[in-house]
Amino acid sequence: MGHDEAMPQLPALAVDIGGTKIAAGMVEPGGRMAAVARVPTPQGPQIDAETLWRTVAAFLERFAAGGPAFAGVGVGCGGPMSWPAGRVSPLNIPAWRDFPLRERLQELFPTVPVRLHNDAICMAAGEHWRGAGRGSDNVLGIVVSTGVGGGLILGGHLVDGASGNAGHIGHVVVDPHGPPCGCGGQGCLEAIARGPAVAEWAREHGWRTRGHEDVTARELADDAARGHPTARDALDRAGNALGVAIASATHLCDLEVVSVGGGLSQAGPLLFDPLEETFRRHVGMRFARRVRVVPAALGQEAGLLGAGALVLAGDRYWNGD
Amino acid sequence: MGHDEAMPQLPALAVDIGGTKIAAGMVEPGGRMAAVARVPTPQGPQIDAETLWRTVAAFLERFAAGGPAFAGVGVGCGGPMSWPAGRVSPLNIPAWRDFPLRERLQELFPTVPVRLHNDAICMAAGEHWRGAGRGSDNVLGIVVSTGVGGGLILGGHLVDGASGNAGHIGHVVVDPHGPPCGCGGQGCLEAIARGPAVAEWAREHGWRTRGHEDVTARELADDAARGHPTARDALDRAGNALGVAIASATHLCDLEVVSVGGGLSQAGPLLFDPLEETFRRHVGMRFARRVRVVPAALGQEAGLLGAGALVLAGDRYWNGD
Repeated sequence: MGHDEAMPQLPALAVDIGGTKIAAGMVEPGGRMAAVARVPTPQGPQIDAETLWRTVAAFLERFAAGGPAFAGVGVGCGGPMSWPAGRVSPLNIPAWRDFPLRERLQELFPTVPVRLHNDAICMAAGEHWRGAGRGSDNVLGIVVSTGVGGGLILGGHLVDGASGNAGHIGHVVVDPHGPPCGCGGQGCLEAIARGPAVAEWAREHGWRTRGHEDVTARELADDAARGHPTARDALDRAGNALGVAIASATHLCDLEVVSVGGGLSQAGPLLFDPLEETFRRHVGMRFARRVRVVPAALGQEAGLLGAGALVLAGDRYWNGD
Repeated sequence: MGHDEAMPQLPALAVDIGGTKIAAGMVEPGGRMAAVARVPTPQGPQIDAETLWRTVAAFLERFAAGGPAFAGVGVGCGGPMSWPAGRVSPLNIPAWRDFPLRERLQELFPTVPVRLHNDAICMAAGEHWRGAGRGSDNVLGIVVSTGVGGGLILGGHLVDGASGNAGHIGHVVVDPHGPPCGCGGQGCLEAIARGPAVAEWAREHGWRTRGHEDVTARELADDAARGHPTARDALDRAGNALGVAIASATHLCDLEVVSVGGGLSQAGPLLFDPLEETFRRHVGMRFARRVRVVPAALGQEAGLLGAGALVLAGDRYWNGD
């Protein structure tokens, strides 16, 4: 921590590669985002691995050329991936399967370090570095979106686990007899609380969507806010599942702060109230009752800030090579 | 790790304070137990805090006087406790409530460091240092006994969390609608899998105990081994609950090895087979399927070895003052 913050430093080039868009930002050592740019992620059956890579490379070269010198490149990308090697197979980017993203970026920017991690882990690092978890040493950052991901900071340092996969709160079991999960397991948090599962449950119970799939979770939250009982029940169910998983994580890891972000968290109290109620029912131990469950503070820039932190605060957030 | 193992070292005086007995051992730097002694823990309504302390102090002074010089004192004690201050309120030692055990031991042995942790955490440290978790950097050690406790090693280091309580696997939720737990929560692993709960469930379902309470879990395992269907069902239920909790912990922490010890683990395959089956049903992610769930290797000496490791390998197992 000391040396990172004592020296005058260059900014980091931060990159966030998702299924719908690619974002780049210049993150200053203090955490300010000096510049941001975004392009849509090329999609469709005709997009192969190299086509997508050329888009990413051209976008980043252009962005970097217009900015100051930078200390390194920090990247968040959807998983799964091999870590720290950075060969990525993002669920929502079918063009890349075992694609050597970190290696390619290192070839593109040969004079500075390139560090890559799961996008949910970058968001958690961002929330710890400059968001809702700032100042606490034991933090779980959760992202509830198309999937449910997360990252774990213990003792002030990002935890990677055996293969860089620590923080996978989405696959904590919240109901052993619950629905099958895309991971092959059963009753995982993600199987119940990911946006599409929440919307699907509501539809099965009589709620009608009026838009296309991408916006259903937001529509659901809107309907719930207007008092639609099935929409409320669906958010209750997701909140309950989050409460159970957070109680388990709190007991196992002795956390101080749990931040919850991602699209579904925009539902606000409609999600957080049942979450809190269920969480309180399941945390009995005194140490666990002290934990604070709060909305993520950084919004959509959390991922970029966390990617920047892999470079700018590597002593806390980077254990790779 | 380097400096602890490079220098020639004195042994550690290791202490394990439980509800039924107090054990002391001289642990050599390589992990050999050079000497062990045990006395019963004074019990009953007439035992107050100071009476119990005098028994502990006299026993340890006598044990230490008969042995070599030692580098420090490592202590495991039942929780809850304040950590690292070491004020203890062990559930099964009613005479001590907020008792300043670490401070008293420091007064008794003023020239060496005294380090104290939860007994289940010491057992996990022991299994990591010289037992089933040796050589792996990401290990959860579980103890299934009167309670269900544990300790968590990530990145090769003991994790303490915000208040020294990390590793509380017993309060991971395995069934959100399950039985109430002594902690005040509901559906915790401990509420289902602790020895007395397993025996009670069996009794409620028609299994008859023939002995007194202390031996019911062992009798249950014996009856299960003879094919008693209710006894088998009771161990199945405990194994299933362990399997769910271990799947959750594995996903959250990206573990390599989970060791399971304590009295109930003596049931062997009658417990481990349903555990493994349920665990496999709930771990879908590829990284999680690699974890090995194994019986603890050290038996009843794990706690003493781990207490010794707080002193002898403090760079890995001691984050306190």
